[in-house]
Amino acid sequence: MPALPRPVGRPRDPALDVAILAAALELLGEGGMETCALDAVARRAGVGKATIYRRWPSKDDLVRDAFGSTAPELLPAEDQGSLVGDAVGVLAALAAALRAPRARAWRRTVPALGPDSPLLPGLPTGPVGDWTGAVDGVVARAEQRGEVGPGTFPPLALRAACAVLVERWLTGQDLDEATETALLTELQSVLLRPHLRG
Amino acid sequence: MPALPRPVGRPRDPALDVAILAAALELLGEGGMETCALDAVARRAGVGKATIYRRWPSKDDLVRDAFGSTAPELLPAEDQGSLVGDAVGVLAALAAALRAPRARAWRRTVPALGPDSPLLPGLPTGPVGDWTGAVDGVVARAEQRGEVGPGTFPPLALRAACAVLVERWLTGQDLDEATETALLTELQSVLLRPHLRG
Repeated sequence: MPALPRPVGRPRDPALDVAILAAALELLGEGGMETCALDAVARRAGVGKATIYRRWPSKDDLVRDAFGSTAPELLPAEDQGSLVGDAVGVLAALAAALRAPRARAWRRTVPALGPDSPLLPGLPTGPVGDWTGAVDGVVARAEQRGEVGPGTFPPLALRAACAVLVERWLTGQDLDEATETALLTELQSVLLRPHLRG
Repeated sequence: MPALPRPVGRPRDPALDVAILAAALELLGEGGMETCALDAVARRAGVGKATIYRRWPSKDDLVRDAFGSTAPELLPAEDQGSLVGDAVGVLAALAAALRAPRARAWRRTVPALGPDSPLLPGLPTGPVGDWTGAVDGVVARAEQRGEVGPGTFPPLALRAACAVLVERWLTGQDLDEATETALLTELQSVLLRPHLRG
């Protein structure tokens, strides 16, 4: 293997970074680590291989960064004014994230890794962003606005709603728009509303 | 490749079948399809390769059968006398199934397959047995004994409890005995009890 230039601190063109990381995720989603060869990433992103090596010293580094730098924020940036409003925002963001290339890439790459895989450290443990943190944020906002008393709304109720979406995705059940709307309504009524009475 | 004998209807020694299927699941759990070579299965099960070929014409057939014939029954065979009793039975069976070699094998094999993989048809869509069917069974029993009115207990509440366990497993969070007991208690109180009031 030829000696490679060391990566230099900040990449020079952020748009190239985005294109390379997106190409890596797409290829991982199509066939896992095997399909995500650096040649293929370079072709898909329309760059030379050297452009990739200047940024990431190895494929493992590129893959880790592709997952790490594309994790979506699931909590709506704007407070939606109610626990249910914020919760539906998180659930809709989660459903969208589960349809995105990053989740497809995760599905074909991460579960198949053994506990001793050198790729594993630094990879996300879940297919999408930090939904546990988003759930805690929803409950904290509701407590701050006095909608629920401190500690009275169980985060597990909303975590369970998220888990239903993750489970559907894992078992390959597509979520078209109409099904998603119906499911989000049912999740609200069955899991969230009972804890908002009184 | 030498001509192989065709499989003959019923296998001759069921104990050998069990040993071969268990060896295949173990190896899949250790490293997916690559690790589950027929040589390795034969060694692990303590049989000759011909013994395997007499039963399954190809590795894909063996792998499908390993998943299909070892799916656990999640609904307790004995009616536990209450919806919560039956539900806890399903959740405990699900937690145990997620710790078993079959779930580990599924995790390292199935999510990584592409939609066009020839192995995919005939493989289970989920890591364990039929938990949706088990949930429906719990609710049907409760309705039959008059504990809940027809259609008043939402199966989604119990499906969500199952999904929490599946999500924990997927993201690699171990469930030791004490954590499992605490989680099952919380799932009951947050997800099931609100629908049993009145």
